[in-house]
Amino acid sequence: MSNTVSIADAALPRGFRFAAVKAGIKPSGKPDFAVAVADGSASAAAMFTSNRVQAAPVTVGRKHLERSGGRVRVVAVNAGNANCATGEAGLTACEQICRAAALAFGCEGYEVFPSSTGIIGVPLPWEKLAAALPAVGNDLAADPAAFLRFAHAMLTTDTRVKIAHATLRVDGREVRIAGACKGAGMIHPQLEPALHATMLVYLFTDAQMEPGVLDAHLRGAVEESFNRISIDGDTSTNDTVLLLASGASGAEIGAGNAAFRDALTAVCTSLAKQIVADGEGITHVVELQIEGAPSDVDALKIAKSIAHSPLVKTAWAGCDPNWGRLMAAAGCAGVAIDPALIAIWFGDLPICRNGGRAAEYNEQAAHAYLTQPEYSIRLEFGVGTGRCRFWTCDLTKEYVAINADYST
Amino acid sequence: MSNTVSIADAALPRGFRFAAVKAGIKPSGKPDFAVAVADGSASAAAMFTSNRVQAAPVTVGRKHLERSGGRVRVVAVNAGNANCATGEAGLTACEQICRAAALAFGCEGYEVFPSSTGIIGVPLPWEKLAAALPAVGNDLAADPAAFLRFAHAMLTTDTRVKIAHATLRVDGREVRIAGACKGAGMIHPQLEPALHATMLVYLFTDAQMEPGVLDAHLRGAVEESFNRISIDGDTSTNDTVLLLASGASGAEIGAGNAAFRDALTAVCTSLAKQIVADGEGITHVVELQIEGAPSDVDALKIAKSIAHSPLVKTAWAGCDPNWGRLMAAAGCAGVAIDPALIAIWFGDLPICRNGGRAAEYNEQAAHAYLTQPEYSIRLEFGVGTGRCRFWTCDLTKEYVAINADYST
Repeated sequence: MSNTVSIADAALPRGFRFAAVKAGIKPSGKPDFAVAVADGSASAAAMFTSNRVQAAPVTVGRKHLERSGGRVRVVAVNAGNANCATGEAGLTACEQICRAAALAFGCEGYEVFPSSTGIIGVPLPWEKLAAALPAVGNDLAADPAAFLRFAHAMLTTDTRVKIAHATLRVDGREVRIAGACKGAGMIHPQLEPALHATMLVYLFTDAQMEPGVLDAHLRGAVEESFNRISIDGDTSTNDTVLLLASGASGAEIGAGNAAFRDALTAVCTSLAKQIVADGEGITHVVELQIEGAPSDVDALKIAKSIAHSPLVKTAWAGCDPNWGRLMAAAGCAGVAIDPALIAIWFGDLPICRNGGRAAEYNEQAAHAYLTQPEYSIRLEFGVGTGRCRFWTCDLTKEYVAINADYST
Repeated sequence: MSNTVSIADAALPRGFRFAAVKAGIKPSGKPDFAVAVADGSASAAAMFTSNRVQAAPVTVGRKHLERSGGRVRVVAVNAGNANCATGEAGLTACEQICRAAALAFGCEGYEVFPSSTGIIGVPLPWEKLAAALPAVGNDLAADPAAFLRFAHAMLTTDTRVKIAHATLRVDGREVRIAGACKGAGMIHPQLEPALHATMLVYLFTDAQMEPGVLDAHLRGAVEESFNRISIDGDTSTNDTVLLLASGASGAEIGAGNAAFRDALTAVCTSLAKQIVADGEGITHVVELQIEGAPSDVDALKIAKSIAHSPLVKTAWAGCDPNWGRLMAAAGCAGVAIDPALIAIWFGDLPICRNGGRAAEYNEQAAHAYLTQPEYSIRLEFGVGTGRCRFWTCDLTKEYVAINADYST
């Protein structure tokens, strides 16, 4: 791990214990089984990949949340095998590990929330996970070190641990929120059909909330964070965001609590940006600021069209101030824009105005700006009041090398 | 030029003359002004980029066709400057060159169809083109050599000339169709905002047709050819397909003439595949065969989702039989498919069946198949009768290098 992340004891949401052990799924022998156990039954809300092709744990997790009415006791995440494109056997394997975890931690099978990330198309060796459950039980702890181990064990080939946290006061009580996630991994050095980069996000709070309220807050926060990032435009078969509320703070949060929504959004945004920054082979993180679009929905369409354009992303890789490509990508978004009204800034540098090169355009300065590892590009369309922020990255030779690498 | 293309004298549509001269737009000093002149007023139909950001010649060409009621005498194509993001001055420059060409060849300004490809955001030096018109006049000829020069001069950094032709008999008369196009060029070694790869296609026939009939045939043929290819998913600001009919064969073609439609589609398909094969940095041309989708429209959505997936395209670059990525990309298409029904073949090799690895799957054979420069991948969804063919290519480090190259 190249970064040093930490979380203070006083920031960790109460009511949860965390563990991570080596179950022998990852060929590297590193910890590959991350488990969180709620002291009581936690309220839960989840969002899953929109991909029609969904991994077994996505199907099972969704079903379990329905069956339990949004209650979770155990989160069981394995890395090294995605349990996707594994047919009926994959569903059975997933149910088996849930049943074993329920037995180990004293709850119902449908109170276990499963996740998997790693190779697809290969049977999940669920027996190895079941055999590791006693070790998980011994490892569980409600301290920052355990939380970091939990965050670490879910990684595949991410280069660093990704966590974020926030606290707020509600009615004189302290409410804590913490999250851990894994992002875009790289291809696995195996002969088998390899990894599809997957985003797994686990959020914990000690607020007291009904599942329905939790769900509303989660959807709002995800819309402004994880739904505003793109690395390569591919949507994984396993993407999952789970939010659990233990209630241990004693502070009740309603659906209209803006302070909680803001804190949750801040945690999610931090995690989302960490995922982009750890994207495969990336050298630049780019914040797009879209303004003056016909609507917010249109602004998001424009941002995605830019973020998914290989010509734009390769220009960024080369620190090339090629604003024509930005215009062309915006023009492809299917939004009613007028090219003659477009203005573009790189940070504070005027690049384009009225659809043409800005009079103050300075190529050397524009190029120099783009050499930074992180920067912002603002596009103003002058049509309406629609706006959004979006985070993406460049497309490098290293990305291709990582994903084209086939080791026979 | 690495390929040897040719067209026999007997295959060239009658009623047109072709020329190509050096106007001094390309810094290389190569021919950069391609002109076709119809002996009389030719029927014309055109299709343009759907990008909201459109180059000046697209705006002017569209206007001229409306004004003339679908008649064209002169096609004037310059390479080296796209006349895009050039504001009012760009429109004026485009009208100036049309006016000069009209004067030179004895027609109205609105009977001149302009095209430009090259750098964007840089004023078009239209005076250089006007000054070259006398040389164009001297160069015009109705022979294969002139047609090849015409095809050559429109190239930017394409690595080869792209032409195709077909003949058919209608009521005892021979009808000829020929086309020339330029495709995905590479970035121009300039400090200025650089090339956006542009597709320009010019089709000529000596059939006798009303503009409305011509238009119907062109739309049908383009839908099955140029609208079925993708290199990087970016849509240019200058994309143009123009079809002219001189009537010199004396054979009249109606809207329902399937033989003409088929011949035109064959010419367009050949040109479309040549464009893919000359894509930037590509090493594999892939024909996608989508079958069993809910509808043809859905089949096309699935094909595009696969063709635009960087994870799929990088796997192809590595000859990696990563069928999981194909499934995941298909799942993202927004089409109601059932993963459990998906089957995949590489050529005749069974890869996936019922959403899981096929029993006969042979990884060595699958990998070997993908080492070929050109191959087909078939996905069968078992939901309906929707189908399509689509041509695309891999995403290589060379593509990134070409498009990220910024020469300061």
